[in-house]
Amino acid sequence: MPPLNLGDEMPNVAIVTNEGSMKMHEFMKDSWIILFSHPRDYTPVCTTELGRAANLAPEFKKRGVKMIALSCDDADSHNGWIKDVQSHANHVGDFPYPIIADDSREIAKSLGMIDPDESAGAGMPLTCRAVMIFGPDKRLKLSMLYPATTGRNFTEILRVVDSLQLTATKKVATPVDWKVGDKCMVVPSVKKEEEAGLFPKGVETLSVPSGKGYLRMTPMPE
Amino acid sequence: MPPLNLGDEMPNVAIVTNEGSMKMHEFMKDSWIILFSHPRDYTPVCTTELGRAANLAPEFKKRGVKMIALSCDDADSHNGWIKDVQSHANHVGDFPYPIIADDSREIAKSLGMIDPDESAGAGMPLTCRAVMIFGPDKRLKLSMLYPATTGRNFTEILRVVDSLQLTATKKVATPVDWKVGDKCMVVPSVKKEEEAGLFPKGVETLSVPSGKGYLRMTPMPE
Repeated sequence: MPPLNLGDEMPNVAIVTNEGSMKMHEFMKDSWIILFSHPRDYTPVCTTELGRAANLAPEFKKRGVKMIALSCDDADSHNGWIKDVQSHANHVGDFPYPIIADDSREIAKSLGMIDPDESAGAGMPLTCRAVMIFGPDKRLKLSMLYPATTGRNFTEILRVVDSLQLTATKKVATPVDWKVGDKCMVVPSVKKEEEAGLFPKGVETLSVPSGKGYLRMTPMPE
Repeated sequence: MPPLNLGDEMPNVAIVTNEGSMKMHEFMKDSWIILFSHPRDYTPVCTTELGRAANLAPEFKKRGVKMIALSCDDADSHNGWIKDVQSHANHVGDFPYPIIADDSREIAKSLGMIDPDESAGAGMPLTCRAVMIFGPDKRLKLSMLYPATTGRNFTEILRVVDSLQLTATKKVATPVDWKVGDKCMVVPSVKKEEEAGLFPKGVETLSVPSGKGYLRMTPMPE
């Protein structure tokens, strides 16, 4: 199956995790969700990634984002491997998110997380490093597909969560390379006469050769 | 159409750009390619992104990566808008990459770059902020799909290009949050007895509770 597209709803598949079984929508409830897949337990890059994610769990929790990982290994493998992940990352206490045991590849296939270049032998494909961020409406807001060779950047993942959550409620968008605290841009649908009411901190319209006043900056809304 | 998956080949579609018409494979030749779409000319976030990309063009060129942008506007629109992009980004000289004029949405649809939440009215959908990085074999190596609200991070894009190119020729993978110069990880397929020959700078095997020696670090290969 090809990858999910922006706007697609997470299918309500049955999931088996190292913390128990449930339906995906039961896990998601009405929360923001980050689902991230890795190729294989007991492999190097995955260990660094899941450790970093564990240490960042308080940051995701603060933003109301529930985390869930996925690979094509079984639940026993996940539980054994978590000890390595925690040891490598100096993470102590309970592991902060479940890992889906998708040994049948059913979920990875339905979400389009399979990397055709990665194989566990005997024609069994593995998952790529996918990141899928879903909103409380269970629809895909943003996705990344990285190959097995390339570990992800969790600072970038937090940055986009901040942008997605801010822009879901305020009539702004975030410019290239934006980070929390930087100025935002007023979205094109806001009329000139609405600016003062919507943006009490002020709006600065930058001048461009076309004379079109579409580059409108405003301090990050509260 | 759903998004391209890792490993999929770029279709050899006919493209019209603000710099002329050609077939996609004729443009790509055997180069690394970054194709990035934006929702619309003369809109705020897109202007900041294409300006940043223009200023980073020497960095992409140094890495042998050809850049090409895409939106559903026509070539005249692109040529007019480029003046705004350059003015805002303080970019002088020739604009360093072509922009595909996909007003029919044919290419965006075939690559799965359409954002169903964005519309130009009259049911005409717009493109999301897709980034697709293709290798010299014209196959998709990495992709990002960001919504219109969320500008991309070109530092992250350069970071993953560095990882993709390094790991395409050396038997290493790059860990979470890696950047050029950081240590790399030896890929699982390398046997213990091959380490010395492949990694003359040395390999350090980190200890983990499982006792499995899969966390093997090595200085970044030249």
